[in-house]
Amino acid sequence: MSLDEDLEDARAAASVTGGVHPGIRRARAWLSRAVEPGTIDLFRYVEDVGAVEAVRRLRAGTAPDRIRSLVGARAQQDASLADLHRAERCGARLVVPEDDEWPAYPLHALTVAVAGEPFAARDQSDRTRALVPPLGLWVRGPGRLDVVADRSVAVVGSRASTAYGEHVAAELGHQLGERGWTVVSGGAFGIDSAAHRGALAAEAPTIAVLACGVDRVYPAAHGALFGRIAETGLLVSEWPPGCAPLRHRFLVRNRLIAALTRGTVVVEAAARSGAQATANRARRLGRALMVVPGPITSALSVGCHELLRDEEAGAVLVTSAAHVIEAVGGIGTDLAPPVERPTSPRDELSDVATRVLDACPVRIGVSPERLASIAGCTVLDVLRVLPSLELADLVQWTGTGWRLAPPPNPPGAAA
Amino acid sequence: MSLDEDLEDARAAASVTGGVHPGIRRARAWLSRAVEPGTIDLFRYVEDVGAVEAVRRLRAGTAPDRIRSLVGARAQQDASLADLHRAERCGARLVVPEDDEWPAYPLHALTVAVAGEPFAARDQSDRTRALVPPLGLWVRGPGRLDVVADRSVAVVGSRASTAYGEHVAAELGHQLGERGWTVVSGGAFGIDSAAHRGALAAEAPTIAVLACGVDRVYPAAHGALFGRIAETGLLVSEWPPGCAPLRHRFLVRNRLIAALTRGTVVVEAAARSGAQATANRARRLGRALMVVPGPITSALSVGCHELLRDEEAGAVLVTSAAHVIEAVGGIGTDLAPPVERPTSPRDELSDVATRVLDACPVRIGVSPERLASIAGCTVLDVLRVLPSLELADLVQWTGTGWRLAPPPNPPGAAA
Repeated sequence: MSLDEDLEDARAAASVTGGVHPGIRRARAWLSRAVEPGTIDLFRYVEDVGAVEAVRRLRAGTAPDRIRSLVGARAQQDASLADLHRAERCGARLVVPEDDEWPAYPLHALTVAVAGEPFAARDQSDRTRALVPPLGLWVRGPGRLDVVADRSVAVVGSRASTAYGEHVAAELGHQLGERGWTVVSGGAFGIDSAAHRGALAAEAPTIAVLACGVDRVYPAAHGALFGRIAETGLLVSEWPPGCAPLRHRFLVRNRLIAALTRGTVVVEAAARSGAQATANRARRLGRALMVVPGPITSALSVGCHELLRDEEAGAVLVTSAAHVIEAVGGIGTDLAPPVERPTSPRDELSDVATRVLDACPVRIGVSPERLASIAGCTVLDVLRVLPSLELADLVQWTGTGWRLAPPPNPPGAAA
Repeated sequence: MSLDEDLEDARAAASVTGGVHPGIRRARAWLSRAVEPGTIDLFRYVEDVGAVEAVRRLRAGTAPDRIRSLVGARAQQDASLADLHRAERCGARLVVPEDDEWPAYPLHALTVAVAGEPFAARDQSDRTRALVPPLGLWVRGPGRLDVVADRSVAVVGSRASTAYGEHVAAELGHQLGERGWTVVSGGAFGIDSAAHRGALAAEAPTIAVLACGVDRVYPAAHGALFGRIAETGLLVSEWPPGCAPLRHRFLVRNRLIAALTRGTVVVEAAARSGAQATANRARRLGRALMVVPGPITSALSVGCHELLRDEEAGAVLVTSAAHVIEAVGGIGTDLAPPVERPTSPRDELSDVATRVLDACPVRIGVSPERLASIAGCTVLDVLRVLPSLELADLVQWTGTGWRLAPPPNPPGAAA
């Protein structure tokens, strides 16, 4: 069936039962190739007249000039059926807002954000920064998109990562996966792939949101990684199969990583890198922004530390999956356990008891009078605290005087 | 002259001109050995009746029971003259609140803090935690205490530090010294000594606040270090010469490090170590608390990260002396410079220009019509942005079409 016939058919079907009309899916497939995703005016036009009608008018030349200019030379081209077939061949599908599995709840934040954009094109956010809902998502993998993305966290960072950053990202990915959280990242070199690999090692689903078609492997070295993700997790893209990973598409893509997840963890970022943009997106979408610190001597942690110093960024320092889950999880149900410290009998001592204890010599026992003089208290004080010190195995009676009991740990001055 | 004669003499001298009466200094020397420093009730009694009168009454047995019990067996001992002579022999002196060089301004925070302590002994803070002004300070070194401590920052941390922590502490100490700031620390192994050494390397004065007499070397390996500090900086202690570094004294001492400085930087701290206590002191004294992060894989940075995660601690993440000075320095005069990033001509491009640029092939030039199709815009758009792209040396005309100009840096996708 031709695109135009399909569209007519979809228009004629007043209400659809048992799934989405193929014409709607085909219209959105066409739109995903005709206009770069993230375009505010096209999203608004589709919201206004519907996907099918939008495509019909664009092809007929009856859409407003401003919308037609977005499509430009592509208006008369049609690869929608080929794209859908190509997706099918690699095990992918186009998920559209009309589908049950559309992640409507997380993406709602984008709908709210785009409502704040002005009408005049010159006043609108640049397309690489604009928070616009996707018109459809090409998805490759077995799980339902809404289910897999439900309890998810983004783990992102530099491609030029260090061994430290990769270790941390893999560890976080693994721990999050073990606790039933989906790790979302961009499939890139460095932090992204380490996070994906950590999740895969925990046999947990992970989502790679790509800036190219879900049948393409970019970077080329990630063929095996993407294959594994597609088996147990999801490869997701706004661009139809075959599309190239153009530079600006990564920036447009990043808003989806922020929107699909409950929060974003930045593991390593250089000075003034994409970290600020990531923080900005997370904040504007009301998502938690979490940052892993690193050595201040590492250039790859400078961007992380900048975020943590920036009060407006509202970033939380995290060092474990427990911290991450505390930040994004349900209040009261996902609190990180406090750091434990072995308690020592010393901690419970009164001021006088501490001083008497410190006054006790290591080897030769001394009299209570001598202890009082060293500790700067009365003999009565000394006689009052010695029994409890002895009970706590801190001092011992030698037969001629009091001395320290052999300590279980080597003693030292407190820092 | 005996202590009692000296005291009588000091009482008789109604007003002193040209310096502090020797009886006052001797009285405070006596007090510093008779009662452990940091004792709230003794401080209040001395404030109330004066140092000379307090000592006279304690020795005569006419002081209130509660005050006499603090002194206990030491009331009839007197090493004050010997202590003053011993100090003189090692180049030290006892600085008292009546001296011009008393650091009254920074220590005022302790006077304010102690005013909030209840009267009943059982309700008061433990002596290791109480914020009480010192009754006198034994000082060894050439500088005036108030001058050297004026623009000062504490750099503290674990004794069991890592090479990373020591490097950072030394670097901070050096940078602060170069910028005219005094580094104050505790003279301990690890972070403390690294910070002192960094300051010394910058030929800047540094202050070691000790938990033992200023003539003692603890730890014993720091003989050369303390010697160098005493030549150009100051060794400071509340305890008279010869006193041993008892464990509880380190905790009592720590309040002075916080009080003497405008802020405290924690470089490395283990989980639940002294870092929380340090933070607590800095906050209660209204001082800046600064924390250097580290690898989350390092046990010695766990305490630092805890502080940075604790909103109540109010800690600021710092990675350089500039950050430290921004936090403690004068508002507007000591701002840290923002991190620089080399700007690229790409940063200034419009959305359409970026897409057209990304559409340009690397080698073989293509037509504007082809660029419009790839970039998803009109041919008119392409023709409008090409001149500025060419001017910015981003694209070039091959004679048959447009292609990318050879880039100055290797291109890559944005994170």
